[in-house]
Amino acid sequence: MSQNTGGPAEFDHAAVPSLGIDVPAQVPTHWYNMNADFPEPLPPALNPATDEPVVPEDLEPLFARSLIAQELSTERYLEIPQPVREVYALWRPSPLRRAVRLERALGTRAKIYYKYEGVSPCGSHKPNSSVPQAYFNKIEGIERLTTETGAGQWGASLAFACALFGMTSQTWQVRTSYEQKPYRHIQMGVYGSQCYSSPSELTESGRRMREQFPDTTGSLGMAISEAVEVAANDPGTHYALGSVLNHVMIHQSVIGLELLDQLSQAGEEQADVVFACAGGGSNAAGIIFPLLGQNLREGSTTRFVAVEPAACPSMTKGEYRYDFGDVAGMTPKLKMYTLGTDFVPPAIHAGGLRYHGMSPMVSHAVHLGLIEPTAVEQDRSFDAGITFARTEGIIPAPESTHAIAGALDYAVSEARDGEVIVIGVSGNGVLDLAAYDGKF
Amino acid sequence: MSQNTGGPAEFDHAAVPSLGIDVPAQVPTHWYNMNADFPEPLPPALNPATDEPVVPEDLEPLFARSLIAQELSTERYLEIPQPVREVYALWRPSPLRRAVRLERALGTRAKIYYKYEGVSPCGSHKPNSSVPQAYFNKIEGIERLTTETGAGQWGASLAFACALFGMTSQTWQVRTSYEQKPYRHIQMGVYGSQCYSSPSELTESGRRMREQFPDTTGSLGMAISEAVEVAANDPGTHYALGSVLNHVMIHQSVIGLELLDQLSQAGEEQADVVFACAGGGSNAAGIIFPLLGQNLREGSTTRFVAVEPAACPSMTKGEYRYDFGDVAGMTPKLKMYTLGTDFVPPAIHAGGLRYHGMSPMVSHAVHLGLIEPTAVEQDRSFDAGITFARTEGIIPAPESTHAIAGALDYAVSEARDGEVIVIGVSGNGVLDLAAYDGKF
Repeated sequence: MSQNTGGPAEFDHAAVPSLGIDVPAQVPTHWYNMNADFPEPLPPALNPATDEPVVPEDLEPLFARSLIAQELSTERYLEIPQPVREVYALWRPSPLRRAVRLERALGTRAKIYYKYEGVSPCGSHKPNSSVPQAYFNKIEGIERLTTETGAGQWGASLAFACALFGMTSQTWQVRTSYEQKPYRHIQMGVYGSQCYSSPSELTESGRRMREQFPDTTGSLGMAISEAVEVAANDPGTHYALGSVLNHVMIHQSVIGLELLDQLSQAGEEQADVVFACAGGGSNAAGIIFPLLGQNLREGSTTRFVAVEPAACPSMTKGEYRYDFGDVAGMTPKLKMYTLGTDFVPPAIHAGGLRYHGMSPMVSHAVHLGLIEPTAVEQDRSFDAGITFARTEGIIPAPESTHAIAGALDYAVSEARDGEVIVIGVSGNGVLDLAAYDGKF
Repeated sequence: MSQNTGGPAEFDHAAVPSLGIDVPAQVPTHWYNMNADFPEPLPPALNPATDEPVVPEDLEPLFARSLIAQELSTERYLEIPQPVREVYALWRPSPLRRAVRLERALGTRAKIYYKYEGVSPCGSHKPNSSVPQAYFNKIEGIERLTTETGAGQWGASLAFACALFGMTSQTWQVRTSYEQKPYRHIQMGVYGSQCYSSPSELTESGRRMREQFPDTTGSLGMAISEAVEVAANDPGTHYALGSVLNHVMIHQSVIGLELLDQLSQAGEEQADVVFACAGGGSNAAGIIFPLLGQNLREGSTTRFVAVEPAACPSMTKGEYRYDFGDVAGMTPKLKMYTLGTDFVPPAIHAGGLRYHGMSPMVSHAVHLGLIEPTAVEQDRSFDAGITFARTEGIIPAPESTHAIAGALDYAVSEARDGEVIVIGVSGNGVLDLAAYDGKF
């Protein structure tokens, strides 16, 4: 068993040894960091008390030092520790497939490929980041992670990652989702972790909220406050975020790195256009940034389209400015496209991607004109998801149907013969089937 | 595009052309038929009217002629049509993985592998047979298939297969399951097929049942009657079964055929013991028969253990005799281990595998002493499933937890150092998470 590498040397790598598991050569050995290649540097996060750029010490109460180093890094490649690769090997490399049946159904002569992240044990791209987040916390002596979750995909992915490194997680799930989607908290329980309906009786902020608003349905902002409160008050506990922050974007780069190899294996010189859905931005960053870096460094000419729901249009209708990441204003201020922290999507919106802002790195790329944002209506995205299911056999996550809708519109209206279109399918819709009810 | 082969030449293979999709070389080109290698021939199914062995004509109102030919075949290898392989390529070869974390948690020095069928788009091994069943019906001009389903795994798999070949399916689902597991009928709807709560208003037998017993919770026997009635009365419609019959066991052989290759790739001379769960027998036959054939032909010495629930113990407590496959007595009589057609597992039983009988081919192997049957209690099987989830990261289907429980008991009590144990993990538990509630 080789000693693992990656992360600062002073930490206890022996806490998570390599198990000598075979990892396919196609699983990347390094993550890619877009912050090495932006033509202008990313505007820094600001300490809300001073409005000065955050320094590592600002983040240490909540995050592992290795992750803070990644957050602030401008190195192009960061080594993936072998124990993380050994977990990635459960589902990576994720497949890149040619969607031949879909092409025929559309009557397009473009070539449509899809990169499918739904093969992970939790059904989405989220474990690409939950696994390294658990790992880097474990080697720094942290045994427990807290987080918030809406629909439950991130909470489940963190519970999965914690189980594999002998840790546990505590997830606060928005009360309505907790009650309407019971499978997700059972899933976290099977993995040995806890999931609580938020607001809960377990925190000061939760108790205050329950007293003031006994009938509240909960909110993501409240759930964040509970998760952060617990982590801030226990030195053995840290907090974990599933999107928005730079280190999450870096972890997700495994998607695009594999895609580059797989396109080349398939005999394609480059993707002509990539469609990715975008909520907080982690999936879009993951599939786009390694290709965007290649555009900037090597002159490839791939176009990138980030598709968001018309009901939550941060990139297409929001402002590009400093804003808080959470409702309570506890996080650093982030330069991003934002609808304002008090934005709530209309009740009819069922397709995920409900965050009021957009990852600073994705926002920066949009602002620089490197990624084209677009929005699709809910009916159109579910229609596209159903077309995809009936031709390719896979029921996509509601989030992923946005990327599919964007790609399908393009394929039938604009694409040239032989043009290479790649769709990022970020997850499967198995635990979100209720969202499809009445749509067919 | 090469013309596909396989199946009688008189059928319209052009109805399902090859799409020129790349199929990995590890996806088998032929199915294996255990009926070529049994030391004594399988006792035939009997026509219930005459008690004579069934002839093809008896089965033609309900089944495609290609499938009937497979049902009665004693050829060792049957070619897999290329369009079927192109669909298999969506998830096959399914992974064989070394369960290193599980081995460490158990403290065993045996080598535990698992063959994982949960990677299919429907989450179980069922599409291994639904895909060829749809294909062979399509080339014979059939546009619609009917079936029954309990929990919904088979109904969803048939809807998936029908979508990919431009067909539709109609599934009658036992009323309690239809109401308690709404995700499954939504899944079938997304694939463009119908799922009805049984008893329904759509059939003579359903209407009669609803009149006599308005409050019935439904039963698999009633659902079979409805599906068979519709198929028997419409020349463009056939009926499909997801287990028990010989042609289903043949289709599932892709599991064991891949396993033989993968063990050899992993440097293992042979599996020492294989654990598989068994309800109707399709999963157990699929993983066991290709290895059992090798035992008989080439002198390998692999042991096979078929694990059933103590609450539905057809092999360990049933009789080996001719019995009907369904409650209404409409099917041919099958020589099998059976608890009697009126057997109903206790209400507390949540772990799938509820069929009163066992596939004739699996029963024959058990009767000849070639497969060892055993039964495990429900609590023990869910405990094993939770241990597996927390170490290997995958939540197994309730059915699959029986095989895991059998293997774990063996690994900690009997296994020699270095012994090669293989577990057949027939599916994931994502849509059965409710069964885990309260078990951890």
